[in-house]
Amino acid sequence: MKLPTLSDVLAAHERIKPFVHRTPVLTSRQLSNIFGAELFFKCENFQKVGAFKFRGATNAVLCLSSEEMERGVITHSSGNHAAALTHAAVSRGVKAYIVMPDNAPSAKKSAVSGYGAEITFCKPTLQAREETAAAIMDRTGATLIHAYDNHNVICGQGTAALELMEEIDNIDVIVAPVGGGGLLSGTATAVKGVNRVTAVIGAEPANAADAHESFTTGRLVPSVNPRTVADGLLTSLSERTFSIIRQKADDIVTVSEQSIIGSMLLIWERMKIVVEPSSATVLAVLMENRERFEGKRIGLILSGGNLDFRKLPF
Amino acid sequence: MKLPTLSDVLAAHERIKPFVHRTPVLTSRQLSNIFGAELFFKCENFQKVGAFKFRGATNAVLCLSSEEMERGVITHSSGNHAAALTHAAVSRGVKAYIVMPDNAPSAKKSAVSGYGAEITFCKPTLQAREETAAAIMDRTGATLIHAYDNHNVICGQGTAALELMEEIDNIDVIVAPVGGGGLLSGTATAVKGVNRVTAVIGAEPANAADAHESFTTGRLVPSVNPRTVADGLLTSLSERTFSIIRQKADDIVTVSEQSIIGSMLLIWERMKIVVEPSSATVLAVLMENRERFEGKRIGLILSGGNLDFRKLPF
Repeated sequence: MKLPTLSDVLAAHERIKPFVHRTPVLTSRQLSNIFGAELFFKCENFQKVGAFKFRGATNAVLCLSSEEMERGVITHSSGNHAAALTHAAVSRGVKAYIVMPDNAPSAKKSAVSGYGAEITFCKPTLQAREETAAAIMDRTGATLIHAYDNHNVICGQGTAALELMEEIDNIDVIVAPVGGGGLLSGTATAVKGVNRVTAVIGAEPANAADAHESFTTGRLVPSVNPRTVADGLLTSLSERTFSIIRQKADDIVTVSEQSIIGSMLLIWERMKIVVEPSSATVLAVLMENRERFEGKRIGLILSGGNLDFRKLPF
Repeated sequence: MKLPTLSDVLAAHERIKPFVHRTPVLTSRQLSNIFGAELFFKCENFQKVGAFKFRGATNAVLCLSSEEMERGVITHSSGNHAAALTHAAVSRGVKAYIVMPDNAPSAKKSAVSGYGAEITFCKPTLQAREETAAAIMDRTGATLIHAYDNHNVICGQGTAALELMEEIDNIDVIVAPVGGGGLLSGTATAVKGVNRVTAVIGAEPANAADAHESFTTGRLVPSVNPRTVADGLLTSLSERTFSIIRQKADDIVTVSEQSIIGSMLLIWERMKIVVEPSSATVLAVLMENRERFEGKRIGLILSGGNLDFRKLPF
């Protein structure tokens, strides 16, 4: 398996630049004061489709051959990746087949169909999703674009950290959420390619701590019955993302549900921006480990802003 | 009564510039598409203290003589103005006396006391508030800075529209919320001073429509038992703000509670920013009058982003 390099991330950046937003890096004097550190928030909640996922999906679509473009792309995801892949594909005239569990929230169904996907519903098990996707691939020849176990997707996700480092000098630590590991892999590839001194830390809910366990034991451990408010981080690492994270990340720090919710509220209240619970894990890491981060310059990747405002956790 | 002019607003801008945020003007392709117009959002929710009120309060404090500064400032307000005045005063070493009804939400009490106010509680009637404030003024000699019935406050509020016009050319219409009329008076003064062709429209909840009634009948009518989710817009116009609005605003458009809530949700969902219900009235005007605004370039002043996330209207 070919692991991504900094030049892959740089190439992805050149490729996707015309199609993605260059999201702002925001600061908040109040939050920096509260944590006794200099905080720089890379706001992927302002990215198209409301999440960093649009970077990786766009890169994957732009890497298709013209023959592959004609046959379309497919993924089985109910979340931000499905919407991101659909938008990236359909806006280039590429068909997007999305396999979704029939119990997916109606907001997610309508978001994905709104971007123009051809949705196939299946039972809410991984087996049913994979079988349904395989049948569609057999029929259509569509290319599977996995949400994170995909080289081009990982390279695209790394471009957020690249922009953050272009804009802010001398960052001591960059913290990114970790679910399946696409964002953290891309981030670590970009950061460590640029310099070895900036630390890269994954933020993970303690209630879905497969990445932390895999990282500390050195064996890939799947997530078992994860239950967390950070619904973007329920997935497990793949062999690919685990290999990258093991080599390049410095640590994976777990955080409680209470810290995630408290951090999310703090970001909404003080910064007046909407972030989803998965994004708030990065500030929760600081909240639970104040002394470790005091006095440092810290980049925090706010991964997205999609959530159901009628079901807030506070 | 001396009505403010464009040069007063320009002078206020020079005066307050070093102390207030130059807030961003955001656009949203999605929202512009939905309304069939070009929308420019002046984001005062990102202003210090989370609302445009910091502009007016800062201007009023900076206009005090050194003798007045020593005696302090006072206001009776439970909302954004109290926090704004306190922050503007205390950060220049000026004492801030705030009179608040004893039933004010604890979030507001702690916000104002957090900025360093000396709070005096009273019964929740206008009479009690005025009497309590008068007693403190007698004792301390503090200068009353009314939330909107104040020349310097109005000039400060007009600076948001000034910045919006500096940044965006050829705006056809600027819409601002109207409660007591400080923001709308300042906005109309700034806009009509710069050019006569840009229309200025006040957005007001139908459930608190005193400004609309006063504007259409030509007589100052107070608000009677207003009940609206836009809790920043419960106050009535004063003689001063009515005079300005009558002369300089083009229209006051009322909006339903449902449109306010729907617009607020739309801004949160599509723009990923937090605005309070009062801010959402400006988009509600477009929602209820689509044809009137189609194809136009529209400036919308998002007045603030302070609200209790545990008591959302949706």
